Amino acid sequence: MTSIDEHTPSIDTPARTALERLFDPHSIAIVGASANAAKRGFHAIRTLLQAGYAHPIHPVNPTAGQILGLDVCSSIDRLPYGIDVALIAVPAAAVPDSLRQCAAAGIAGAVVLANGFGEIGEAGAELDAALAAAIAETGIRVIGPNTSGLINVSSGANLVGLQDVPHGPISVITQSGNMLLSVVNDNRAIRGPGFHAYVGLGNQADVRYDECLTELARHPGTGVVAIHSEGFVDGRSFLVAAAEAVPDKPVVALRGGRSEVGRRAARSHTGSIAGSDAVATAVLRQAGVELVDRPDELAVVAGALATCNPIAQGRKVAILSDGGGHATLAADALAASGLELAELGDRTQRRLRQLLGSAATVVDPVDVAGATDTDPIVFAVAVDILMRDPEVGLVLIIGLYGGYHLRFDSGLRRIEDAAAGILLTLTAEHGVPLLIQSCYAALEIDNHDRLRAGGVPVLSSIDHAVRVAVALERRGRKLADTAQRSSLVLPPPAPPIQGSGPLDEPTARRAVAAAGIGVGAWIFAPTVEEVVAAVAGYRQPCALKVVSPQVIHKSDVGGVRLGVVASDAAEHTQAIIDFVRAHMPGAHIDGMIVTPMVDPGVELLVGATHDPIFGPVVAFGSGGVMVEALRDVAFRAAPLTELEALEMIDETIASRMLDGYRHLPAVNRHQLARFLVRIGDFVAAHPEISELDLNPVIASSSGTVPLDVRIILSEKTTGDHR
Amino acid sequence: MTSIDEHTPSIDTPARTALERLFDPHSIAIVGASANAAKRGFHAIRTLLQAGYAHPIHPVNPTAGQILGLDVCSSIDRLPYGIDVALIAVPAAAVPDSLRQCAAAGIAGAVVLANGFGEIGEAGAELDAALAAAIAETGIRVIGPNTSGLINVSSGANLVGLQDVPHGPISVITQSGNMLLSVVNDNRAIRGPGFHAYVGLGNQADVRYDECLTELARHPGTGVVAIHSEGFVDGRSFLVAAAEAVPDKPVVALRGGRSEVGRRAARSHTGSIAGSDAVATAVLRQAGVELVDRPDELAVVAGALATCNPIAQGRKVAILSDGGGHATLAADALAASGLELAELGDRTQRRLRQLLGSAATVVDPVDVAGATDTDPIVFAVAVDILMRDPEVGLVLIIGLYGGYHLRFDSGLRRIEDAAAGILLTLTAEHGVPLLIQSCYAALEIDNHDRLRAGGVPVLSSIDHAVRVAVALERRGRKLADTAQRSSLVLPPPAPPIQGSGPLDEPTARRAVAAAGIGVGAWIFAPTVEEVVAAVAGYRQPCALKVVSPQVIHKSDVGGVRLGVVASDAAEHTQAIIDFVRAHMPGAHIDGMIVTPMVDPGVELLVGATHDPIFGPVVAFGSGGVMVEALRDVAFRAAPLTELEALEMIDETIASRMLDGYRHLPAVNRHQLARFLVRIGDFVAAHPEISELDLNPVIASSSGTVPLDVRIILSEKTTGDHR
Repeated sequence: MTSIDEHTPSIDTPARTALERLFDPHSIAIVGASANAAKRGFHAIRTLLQAGYAHPIHPVNPTAGQILGLDVCSSIDRLPYGIDVALIAVPAAAVPDSLRQCAAAGIAGAVVLANGFGEIGEAGAELDAALAAAIAETGIRVIGPNTSGLINVSSGANLVGLQDVPHGPISVITQSGNMLLSVVNDNRAIRGPGFHAYVGLGNQADVRYDECLTELARHPGTGVVAIHSEGFVDGRSFLVAAAEAVPDKPVVALRGGRSEVGRRAARSHTGSIAGSDAVATAVLRQAGVELVDRPDELAVVAGALATCNPIAQGRKVAILSDGGGHATLAADALAASGLELAELGDRTQRRLRQLLGSAATVVDPVDVAGATDTDPIVFAVAVDILMRDPEVGLVLIIGLYGGYHLRFDSGLRRIEDAAAGILLTLTAEHGVPLLIQSCYAALEIDNHDRLRAGGVPVLSSIDHAVRVAVALERRGRKLADTAQRSSLVLPPPAPPIQGSGPLDEPTARRAVAAAGIGVGAWIFAPTVEEVVAAVAGYRQPCALKVVSPQVIHKSDVGGVRLGVVASDAAEHTQAIIDFVRAHMPGAHIDGMIVTPMVDPGVELLVGATHDPIFGPVVAFGSGGVMVEALRDVAFRAAPLTELEALEMIDETIASRMLDGYRHLPAVNRHQLARFLVRIGDFVAAHPEISELDLNPVIASSSGTVPLDVRIILSEKTTGDHR
Repeated sequence: MTSIDEHTPSIDTPARTALERLFDPHSIAIVGASANAAKRGFHAIRTLLQAGYAHPIHPVNPTAGQILGLDVCSSIDRLPYGIDVALIAVPAAAVPDSLRQCAAAGIAGAVVLANGFGEIGEAGAELDAALAAAIAETGIRVIGPNTSGLINVSSGANLVGLQDVPHGPISVITQSGNMLLSVVNDNRAIRGPGFHAYVGLGNQADVRYDECLTELARHPGTGVVAIHSEGFVDGRSFLVAAAEAVPDKPVVALRGGRSEVGRRAARSHTGSIAGSDAVATAVLRQAGVELVDRPDELAVVAGALATCNPIAQGRKVAILSDGGGHATLAADALAASGLELAELGDRTQRRLRQLLGSAATVVDPVDVAGATDTDPIVFAVAVDILMRDPEVGLVLIIGLYGGYHLRFDSGLRRIEDAAAGILLTLTAEHGVPLLIQSCYAALEIDNHDRLRAGGVPVLSSIDHAVRVAVALERRGRKLADTAQRSSLVLPPPAPPIQGSGPLDEPTARRAVAAAGIGVGAWIFAPTVEEVVAAVAGYRQPCALKVVSPQVIHKSDVGGVRLGVVASDAAEHTQAIIDFVRAHMPGAHIDGMIVTPMVDPGVELLVGATHDPIFGPVVAFGSGGVMVEALRDVAFRAAPLTELEALEMIDETIASRMLDGYRHLPAVNRHQLARFLVRIGDFVAAHPEISELDLNPVIASSSGTVPLDVRIILSEKTTGDHR
């Protein structure tokens, strides 16, 4: 099994990156190879041989000899130089040394199976540090530790020991090996399209999600990247990688550790840290990742995205059903998911009526009402009619499709087989995707399998079929407006704002205003005389607000006065000073912020935080006193685009109050969106900002005015925030 | 096949009701029997014979002769008297006459297959009326029309023509025949527990959901009633039937026609009328019905409720997993469903640690971390430890369970088979339910099937397993507090409030107050002098509100003044009069309502409507100006109990403001709940009230005061509202 190039690097090695070599190895070493059939070091070799891996395999074990007919090399340093990948199947304590030896032998990447590192907490900390040192010193690329391994199904490079992984277009990145087993078994249960590659990342001591995503998305064999993750080490890099990959290849993700108990479990499992679930959900969607909420959707959605065309933007779903009960449930499920049914054209309806007869329903959802019972080809004709309607972007067949030979007459089997071929031609010719839900889908039925082989999902569950339709619709929309979406790449940092911790409000206002963000008219008046002059200058009632480093909640200590006019400005100023002195004897009063009273408007919250995983994130929602009760807030990673800001606004309850709600003025959404874009640009360029809080912002037809401007800088003020 | 009692009624006939005879017929006539193998009148006979139906079958067809070895009777009037059920397989137009003949022949019930009645609209209206007349005149009980039929799987009385329906504890009521096919196939796909009986109700021209539910729940063979419905004809009767059945038998329901498009589809399908989805969801849950939102959950939840013990009230879920990734996802899904994980006791944790070793996680979710790989019996020991913990109400095994012989070593097969037996003993002995999710569940595996046969669900989907846990937890809670829940039976009507349409506010206030519901201090003052006297009498600032039959939105026409004191009361009254006269020249002003100003509190909405399907329903939520933006409203059918009112309050955003939110006073929830109970009693006793609206109600530590009381009576004022 050793080849003639045993002691020389493969000729294409110099041209390939370490990750390319990891994911498509032309030679593999098994460090910790074993002749014991119960050991992973034996399984790995057996699986490689069974999977038909056609390149050299080098077992390494001090006892040498032979395993499964392969010569065993007694140590890593005796291996031929420049092997692509080493599977490290030795105990945890031996891993750092093994890695150093591998690096010295010119091995590009290592897959480390052992657990007992960072994920077990204190007890593993020392070993974790030794591992990190070995990686840093040698530059060897490491997958794991605490991983199940890596598979390239196409080449047979199967380092997981899981046999019979079906070949197909799905590339999988998970954190946990059992999740691979789930995805493979779920794919098998739905008779889905199979797998191209798999990697389990375990503790992510070195190689991370973003790198794997970028690499696997480049493989021509990848039709979709399916991800299971309990946490991203560098979430921003993942966002950027996803935003870059998505226009070319769909990315589907299932996240673990979203709840508090789940997070605790994830920590003990892979040592992952999780930030806010709401932030992660928002920014991953923004990057174009199709997030599935349910574990049972991952294989289904990944399989469909790998083989189906998206729904062309603006087009709708046509349901074609052979039972009213099913049609109704499918229409409900689509509506609950926010998808619309097609308004079928007159010509479409006429042709359907002619085809299906008087009992049929020829508006969407279409119900054939028995017209197909004796001739399932009628289904194909109806699909053709529907796909010719310019309103229709996807046809969803619901009910018993493909099982008529079981339900009605076994003689229909050949007709159903023929119909499958016609349907495949139709979906290809019209470029309109086709989905089939059949209550017979769990059985092994030839016409279903023929459809699946042609890329048409045939599913048991109405819910899963609708979930797929949602993913195809969203993908169509994303592809159409890619140019209007953020790359999510952070800009070069601007000169940092000086200071640390909370800024006083005048400084915060100046910083925001310097970035070109309007904060309305305001004057900082350090003396009573200047307060009076400022109010007089505005020639309208004003608000006074105390500025004091000790006072955080100004109104709680009587630090705010509204509707102040010039004649009583001195008196109000003194009253504020007296109140604050009474409530907070030690407080130093810097002065007052004077602002003209703002016309009534919608009270909004605009803010930003530096998320520990994803970096700068903008928040938007309902502001004012209801903030804590409503919990109405949407997030986007900064920098964001106007389109993304508009979508963000639409997600909130606050958006229901923007179009002239009750006595409130109507708000220009585009103007508001551009305000959010500027906030995003500001915080993206200022990594030293750990929190920005404008609450409330008063929005009206004349614009947006923040009444309160708070900035908290991180304690470190170096540029080291990302 | 004809028996000796052919021409005499069965001796037990007199003791059985028509519905008992329908659902367990001791003799069946097939009206419209056919020798043509493509016809339903042939299928029906063939299916009965194949299903082993052991009682007499009487084919009826004018051509007489024999069908499948049975003598055909030439007409209904020649049938032996008192047959239990007739399957009516004749064309729609012939149905009314056939029913009359059946009734004359002493047949208790008829199953009418034909469509073309009310569900096709105008075209079917005449025939629909003729059908209704035949039913009303004869009293024969009719299932359908537009139905798939009826099955008693236990006795082989299969009038649907669907073969191989597996026998088990699930009784199914659907509106549509294809839904039966779905449920049967879904049950087969999860290798679920099978069926006792089935009925398709189609247009519900006579027999309705409530009667079927009551009847099937009484059958000892029924372990659960699973319902699919597109609409209830008399929703209140269904609520009462459900509330009565649920303590004995669980009821699961999937509703079609919840969305606007779904409703349109349902109308053309079965002519169903639907009310508000939010109301239906709330009141069905109140009645104890386990509502499933997803079609793919119906068979899963029904199967589990039929065989599993509920989670004892107050106990929690213990997850036992063999993979961290799965454990995390299951914990997330439980948390998202509002279920809590168990806080395992010290002794439990110590014993688990001893059993599973140092790598395991012994807090919930428990992760065996490899400890079971070579000996799956360890799982059973862990389950025993967990079930002994008094905190644990359900054990949920997650991961690869039962597939170790496939994943690791085929020699484990016998050990896994043995473990199944132990698990069944454990769940029975401890009385703690066990659920298993395994990514091998879709395969045919002996140990899984053995567990299922013993009543332990083994499911593929983590989501489905969690959904089942939710249903078992809710059932445990319902069973524990049944006595504190409403029967939902409407009380005898009180003497009706006189009038029709909107009442003037003093009348409305008097009606509410007469029912013992506090509306705060108020005086109706028809003259300026009386207004002044009233304000003076209260000795505190008051609100004035115009009373005029023409003025609906009082504040829009200047009809409200706040903070009025005695000295300016006359002036304010005149101002109101002038404003109203200016805005609505024709308005007749009856006088003013004078109320003392109320202390600040939480602004709530309390209301009631007469739902077209379910009758009187109470509404509660956030009140005041945000009503339309927040859409924060919960519903309960009246009469409701204090417990139900407390649950209703908890569902709202408003509930977050009851415990002293910001500067608002804390509100006594029990007092508020009792207020809602009284409102429920009031509207339940007054079917003439079509709408009651108290908005806002100001709630504070001192109680609840409605600021505005609106009542709209239905246009008919007779007692004919239910």
